Amino acid sequence: MAGREQAVTRVAADERAASLLQEYRETRALTERLCEPLATEDYVVQSMPDASPTKWHLGHTTWFFETFVLGPHEPNFRPYDEVFAYLHNSYYEGVGARQPRAERGMLTRPTVDEVYAYRASIDDRMGEFLTSEVAARKDVLDLVELGVNHEQQHQELLLTDLQHLLSLNPLRPALTGPAPTPPIAASSSEYIEHEGGLFEIGHFADGFAFDNEGPPHRVHLEPFAIAASPVTAGEFLEFVEAGGYARSELWLSDGWSMVQREGWRAPLYWENVSGAWQRFSLYGMIALDKNAPVCHLSYYEADAFARWQGARLPTEAEWEVCARELSSDGQFLDRGVLVPVPPARGSGFAGGAWTWTASPYSPYPRFTPAAGAVGEYNGKFMVNQMVLRGASCFTPAAHVRPTYRNFFPPAARWQVTGMRLARK
Amino acid sequence: MAGREQAVTRVAADERAASLLQEYRETRALTERLCEPLATEDYVVQSMPDASPTKWHLGHTTWFFETFVLGPHEPNFRPYDEVFAYLHNSYYEGVGARQPRAERGMLTRPTVDEVYAYRASIDDRMGEFLTSEVAARKDVLDLVELGVNHEQQHQELLLTDLQHLLSLNPLRPALTGPAPTPPIAASSSEYIEHEGGLFEIGHFADGFAFDNEGPPHRVHLEPFAIAASPVTAGEFLEFVEAGGYARSELWLSDGWSMVQREGWRAPLYWENVSGAWQRFSLYGMIALDKNAPVCHLSYYEADAFARWQGARLPTEAEWEVCARELSSDGQFLDRGVLVPVPPARGSGFAGGAWTWTASPYSPYPRFTPAAGAVGEYNGKFMVNQMVLRGASCFTPAAHVRPTYRNFFPPAARWQVTGMRLARK
Amino acid sequence: MAGREQAVTRVAADERAASLLQEYRETRALTERLCEPLATEDYVVQSMPDASPTKWHLGHTTWFFETFVLGPHEPNFRPYDEVFAYLHNSYYEGVGARQPRAERGMLTRPTVDEVYAYRASIDDRMGEFLTSEVAARKDVLDLVELGVNHEQQHQELLLTDLQHLLSLNPLRPALTGPAPTPPIAASSSEYIEHEGGLFEIGHFADGFAFDNEGPPHRVHLEPFAIAASPVTAGEFLEFVEAGGYARSELWLSDGWSMVQREGWRAPLYWENVSGAWQRFSLYGMIALDKNAPVCHLSYYEADAFARWQGARLPTEAEWEVCARELSSDGQFLDRGVLVPVPPARGSGFAGGAWTWTASPYSPYPRFTPAAGAVGEYNGKFMVNQMVLRGASCFTPAAHVRPTYRNFFPPAARWQVTGMRLARK
Amino acid sequence: MAGREQAVTRVAADERAASLLQEYRETRALTERLCEPLATEDYVVQSMPDASPTKWHLGHTTWFFETFVLGPHEPNFRPYDEVFAYLHNSYYEGVGARQPRAERGMLTRPTVDEVYAYRASIDDRMGEFLTSEVAARKDVLDLVELGVNHEQQHQELLLTDLQHLLSLNPLRPALTGPAPTPPIAASSSEYIEHEGGLFEIGHFADGFAFDNEGPPHRVHLEPFAIAASPVTAGEFLEFVEAGGYARSELWLSDGWSMVQREGWRAPLYWENVSGAWQRFSLYGMIALDKNAPVCHLSYYEADAFARWQGARLPTEAEWEVCARELSSDGQFLDRGVLVPVPPARGSGFAGGAWTWTASPYSPYPRFTPAAGAVGEYNGKFMVNQMVLRGASCFTPAAHVRPTYRNFFPPAARWQVTGMRLARK
Repeated sequence: MAGREQAVTRVAADERAASLLQEYRETRALTERLCEPLATEDYVVQSMPDASPTKWHLGHTTWFFETFVLGPHEPNFRPYDEVFAYLHNSYYEGVGARQPRAERGMLTRPTVDEVYAYRASIDDRMGEFLTSEVAARKDVLDLVELGVNHEQQHQELLLTDLQHLLSLNPLRPALTGPAPTPPIAASSSEYIEHEGGLFEIGHFADGFAFDNEGPPHRVHLEPFAIAASPVTAGEFLEFVEAGGYARSELWLSDGWSMVQREGWRAPLYWENVSGAWQRFSLYGMIALDKNAPVCHLSYYEADAFARWQGARLPTEAEWEVCARELSSDGQFLDRGVLVPVPPARGSGFAGGAWTWTASPYSPYPRFTPAAGAVGEYNGKFMVNQMVLRGASCFTPAAHVRPTYRNFFPPAARWQVTGMRLARK
Repeated sequence: MAGREQAVTRVAADERAASLLQEYRETRALTERLCEPLATEDYVVQSMPDASPTKWHLGHTTWFFETFVLGPHEPNFRPYDEVFAYLHNSYYEGVGARQPRAERGMLTRPTVDEVYAYRASIDDRMGEFLTSEVAARKDVLDLVELGVNHEQQHQELLLTDLQHLLSLNPLRPALTGPAPTPPIAASSSEYIEHEGGLFEIGHFADGFAFDNEGPPHRVHLEPFAIAASPVTAGEFLEFVEAGGYARSELWLSDGWSMVQREGWRAPLYWENVSGAWQRFSLYGMIALDKNAPVCHLSYYEADAFARWQGARLPTEAEWEVCARELSSDGQFLDRGVLVPVPPARGSGFAGGAWTWTASPYSPYPRFTPAAGAVGEYNGKFMVNQMVLRGASCFTPAAHVRPTYRNFFPPAARWQVTGMRLARK
Repeated sequence: MAGREQAVTRVAADERAASLLQEYRETRALTERLCEPLATEDYVVQSMPDASPTKWHLGHTTWFFETFVLGPHEPNFRPYDEVFAYLHNSYYEGVGARQPRAERGMLTRPTVDEVYAYRASIDDRMGEFLTSEVAARKDVLDLVELGVNHEQQHQELLLTDLQHLLSLNPLRPALTGPAPTPPIAASSSEYIEHEGGLFEIGHFADGFAFDNEGPPHRVHLEPFAIAASPVTAGEFLEFVEAGGYARSELWLSDGWSMVQREGWRAPLYWENVSGAWQRFSLYGMIALDKNAPVCHLSYYEADAFARWQGARLPTEAEWEVCARELSSDGQFLDRGVLVPVPPARGSGFAGGAWTWTASPYSPYPRFTPAAGAVGEYNGKFMVNQMVLRGASCFTPAAHVRPTYRNFFPPAARWQVTGMRLARK
Repeated sequence: MAGREQAVTRVAADERAASLLQEYRETRALTERLCEPLATEDYVVQSMPDASPTKWHLGHTTWFFETFVLGPHEPNFRPYDEVFAYLHNSYYEGVGARQPRAERGMLTRPTVDEVYAYRASIDDRMGEFLTSEVAARKDVLDLVELGVNHEQQHQELLLTDLQHLLSLNPLRPALTGPAPTPPIAASSSEYIEHEGGLFEIGHFADGFAFDNEGPPHRVHLEPFAIAASPVTAGEFLEFVEAGGYARSELWLSDGWSMVQREGWRAPLYWENVSGAWQRFSLYGMIALDKNAPVCHLSYYEADAFARWQGARLPTEAEWEVCARELSSDGQFLDRGVLVPVPPARGSGFAGGAWTWTASPYSPYPRFTPAAGAVGEYNGKFMVNQMVLRGASCFTPAAHVRPTYRNFFPPAARWQVTGMRLARK
């Protein structure tokens, strides 16, 4: 009987390995497809310490598979290049020294071609590895799946980092084009009433989730109301034009400091060109799409706008409970996310935005990170950040689920970050 | 009948006014008594942007009464000195410009004597005002009560700021002495098991509370265990000596950055003098009191110690639920707080420490700050800080209650901040 | 014969010792007289890293005598307090560690009274020492003389540092008053023509000079013209009002960076109050004294004004050659320096200003600093600074001589620094 | 007669135009030849605010011709691209706004190919322009000559900036190779005695010179001695190994601050690899060439080494007087400069180094910058810098002359900067 069970398990593992290899290849290919419009020069530069060069994203996601999958499990593993390990480690203290984050843009070598060669080499080895016997272990396949999801996260970062880099260029280069017509947004003033109560949140279904999405646990919610749609750029423009950035009473103290120190007068990338509002995007400068969800807000701006409206931001529990309840027809997520398909696949760069929640990023009750260096994936960032929920136009479709917890420091604006209102 | 009710209300208000006047006078006198050991020079200097000169604390607490009580309510109010208003405003955007926080120590004038004269003058006017008819209004008396509690908070800050200032002096001056013998602490490894469930937390009883302690609301807790006593200095010393400050895997990412940038090797004020651990206190350098609660920890250090122990910090809700349940015999608070009496009153500077919780400082559901400038008291700081619960040896007795929410940024170490463990 | 010579030398040395003791006592007393108008609080605060607290000046000048005179020469020398040596060392690497310069204002202890007690104690010991046999050596008396001149330099710094500190106070305190009427200045547009040639400059006469004033050496000057009087505040005001601070072509590149980074729009301490120009002084805010020499200029401002005038700044050699030639009737120095008497003695705080020269501060040919730690007095600062010549209203009369080389970085403005024009 | 003179002048101008066109083409071609070993990625990155990306050097030198030659003089001039003017202006306030210096590395567009296209286009127009009538004016040809010399200066900067960039890369890339064998150096302890006197210095011969090399004027020199050869790397290594970087008494105060703040322990690019000293160069890491002149010293290090030797640095006048006197046989310059030919032409990257002088960079008597924006070329930097004399292995041969004044701030180390000793 034990033998039969093992055989069944083995067949299932083989199927999973095959399916993961397929997913691996699609993900790796999509990453490279996203880079097609780039000039070699665009791969190299780091626009600020928070962002990374495209070249680094390409190398780092590859290093992740080499280090956490092949390193401990490939028979006769030998590193591709010892210095590459140093160059492409992001923040894993457990696997050795690394290039300082703020100096990723100092590295003109390896060249772009050399990084693509590195990718191709690891892809070959991963292909061989995933069809070998040793790969058919749950813990190994879990690491592969983590690596795939990790690379998908970097697809979004790669695009936001590129947008930031190009925005600094007075030539206002467009990476691609033309911009698609944004869909017509519903008003954000329609509220869904919710009576509150005791609910379970957190990931408990089948399928992949990051460690920070669990464990599932109960939360109690007081009655609340949440907006059916996110705030639009046009609505946020009213706040800008009503002098919202000059009224200290609307802002958190730290937010007001940022407004003054950085001279914020509108969301990132917005510019008033001879009286007409435009914003910089991967299509270059485009007219402000007033019906689309507002994006490139910091938490501070989202919070100030909500206060101006006599409202507030929802907590992540409120958001998740609503997202689950409405997920049968997908209405809630769809309204927020709009077209959450990867840009290379579909209609594109326009569309949805992550929404800031009122919840600081903390571990759920009984949270335990994974053992070993991959345990540094999420847990060690659980302070000084706020949770964002939903997804953006740059988010891979596979990542759109009610339990997904994105997080950034409250001053971050270069991600595709918008907001949704709540009351009570 | 309306007349009779009014009369009853009036009598109650008069009684409350009389009682508040008494409290006002005691609080004001205690503040000045705390300053008795100071040299004139000690009043003037600001040791870092987060701390303030003693002279500023004396003036600012006075300004609070002048601005928020006398200003709007005293008949024929005239400001004591227009420049004083600029000098003593802490962070209230709603009442005009102010001396930048980091430059409070540049002001040698007004002199200490002039600040005491300012205090005396406002005290006279407050005495007259509180025995007048106009003061007998609930909203006015609420402001007076807020001012008294505000000054009590500054009594604690005044002492921690002084300790920080004197710690920078190679002469190692003692402000007072000798140090009392700390009580014998229970071991922090005894845990109270709690089965969790649905509880109400937040302030709902009679008596003063700050706005951030409410509104009361329900929270759901998973089963947990909380240490019966706080961690002692001796226990934390084991972490220090076991190399805890050199093991990145124990630290949050932001915490590890601080350890490296600031060269932290032990809690603030600790020093290894020829093999013997000492710490700087208001008594000068004293031998490390190993049985007393550890203090002068940042949140990062508390979190790292807990991880080293395979434990975690409690949430503020867990703490509050336990504190309420055990408050019949006062056991829980006492073990944590030890001797929470103002130093000038009793045994003193030794003793309890605030304990960091795992909870970021956020508004409770349906929280609304007070109208007007006093609404800036708490709400605008609800980001980038962590909640501390309990009290310290410097905390006025009146502030020791299960709902009190203290808060500081996670890197702050100059307050009397320690920790208590939790599990599950 | 040798015996007789020795006796003669001995008598001369005794006379010099007696005369130096007299000078010592007068200098020490004047320092303290300058402090008479201060409140205790004014002694303590450091307004910027370049300035020092009054209390520190009082202690440091005392420490100089203790360290360099008594330390090596007093029989049975014992230090007054070992920590004081750490606290009062300014920059002498050769005599041990020291309180970091930027943190001199963190020290509320020793108190002002304790510093005066320190002064009195060292004064007693110096009095005894200077009447003892051991003091009657040339090298020892040279050190005493250096110490006296050192303290005189600190008298000027003490006043400029105080002025800077009080200027930061919105109460605009006056240290003393009322301001004297400034003398009527001659126009700065009258030029003295000089045919140039080969000249000797540098100190070669009898009498005290700092090491940097020598050795004497020859310089060749091309024909030049130098203004008979310094530029007045009124003349500089024309530059301000003609938009001089907004015209990049008038400025050195580093100067223009400062103008933009610091927002300079006029000399330090100048303020346009409702259309009338005032400046902050030790008399508080006073009307701009247009006929007095302009002061509180950086080198950059002096240089830009000269360029605006189609002129330039004189080199220090040009200045010195003229000062010597005109010194028979004292006309040149007098016109620049006006009333160079110590403020406590005479007419005071109004008056002359140091004048920036076009000469970077470099060693004269064959310059050698003194042996030992006092060799750090001047030589190690001979880079990144510009020479100033003349004297100011704060300069002790004994320091007014044609060879005196004052020096500050080109961005410094808190000294009493003005300018004189030259051409060709 | 006037007609004939005009014709003669015209013929001379035509000849000069033809000769300059030749020089223009050679210079432009050499710049591009220097870039041949680069990968596209190497062109883009700015390694520090003081350095510029290669791509920027290529564009900026082109912009110089477009702006100062074609702009005012080409008939029907139209700018190549208005944004390019903004991007490639270095520091000329007189010709409009510019990309901030520290952000030159943020620009991935224009691409390298687009910059080469820009160069080709301006080269075509310059070719046409220089064969037209309008170019045959002295003032116009002077500007062309300035532009050629300007581009030659940037050839050296381009190489030093590249070296700095590549030095930050843990892959230690070699741009070219192998390293040539350095020539055998004479000992630096042989001194040339000079009796001093009155001399004329500054540019007065025919041929191009920068404005800061004149006007010629007389200086008086005291007797001195100057080393016949520069200090070698081997000699400087003795200082390193004798603990010179740990002895504060050898350093200027500002230099000592740098040593401590930056952790300097040896010249830039030196590394002790398992006991053997190496240095990073454009050939990658190479063994320290002990017989070659030491390079990559700051002024502070040169000054400290001299003090350690009981010597000093020569003034620029001493250097120039010797260079002129010895220039008949070229011995002096040759010994310092060794192989001062452009790397692409000859033996190369090894060899000579600029030598720091003791002279701050100041205008010569009666110096007047050129009118208009090119007047910003040199004059506005005449503060806070030290003069270097000689040439380095990267210096174009045409720039090696006794009057050439190079200048950098005293802390700069990424240029090819060494030293020569002087005494008395």
